[in-house]
Amino acid sequence: MAGRALILFAHGARAESWKAPFERLRGMTQARMPDVPVSLAFLELMEPRLPAQVAALAAEGVSGITVVPVFLGQGGHVLRDLPLMIDALRVAHPGVAITVVGAVGEDPDVLKAMTDFCVAAARP
Amino acid sequence: MAGRALILFAHGARAESWKAPFERLRGMTQARMPDVPVSLAFLELMEPRLPAQVAALAAEGVSGITVVPVFLGQGGHVLRDLPLMIDALRVAHPGVAITVVGAVGEDPDVLKAMTDFCVAAARP
Repeated sequence: MAGRALILFAHGARAESWKAPFERLRGMTQARMPDVPVSLAFLELMEPRLPAQVAALAAEGVSGITVVPVFLGQGGHVLRDLPLMIDALRVAHPGVAITVVGAVGEDPDVLKAMTDFCVAAARP
Repeated sequence: MAGRALILFAHGARAESWKAPFERLRGMTQARMPDVPVSLAFLELMEPRLPAQVAALAAEGVSGITVVPVFLGQGGHVLRDLPLMIDALRVAHPGVAITVVGAVGEDPDVLKAMTDFCVAAARP
């Protein structure tokens, strides 16, 4: 496999049901771009963890990976843990260009859709 | 204050910066409906906690509160902790009709906006 891959990076949780919307997001994203492999990876509590998933994609020969933090806010995980993991992954996989974009929840269009949902919730 | 109020219920985090997108969501929602008080409440690590915020609104005389879980997925917090808290709050405040809607991240339009963001991220 050459070319780029996309990793949706989420927190992870004990309840297996927590994963469902992320699986759905992965499936919807994959359907929109069948040529780019889209996978999930987690910070904790769920598999695969980010380092293992990056290693797997590197072993398959991808030249670039874009990591999308599927977080609502820029907490310690996105601001501190993720950059440290990415630094280590770049050292471990010098042949793979790793890019990290902003948190999904800070995107204006996502915020707009969340606002619409909140407004609708208040008008029963 | 009579009428309904809206509470955006989020997880909370140690990093104060984590709160920013939730404040933004609160502000955007409030701007769209100036007649409905919109506030934040947290499960842990940040103030106000949900019970304190419900008590404050009840003391102000609201007749109904809609709680919007601003979570990406239905994990243990939304599936287990929140219903238990809501049950206790309904007992504590029998004069207030408390409604809980689904998690923001499970809304189809929010999922669509998140998908758009992921697809755009993969096409640098």
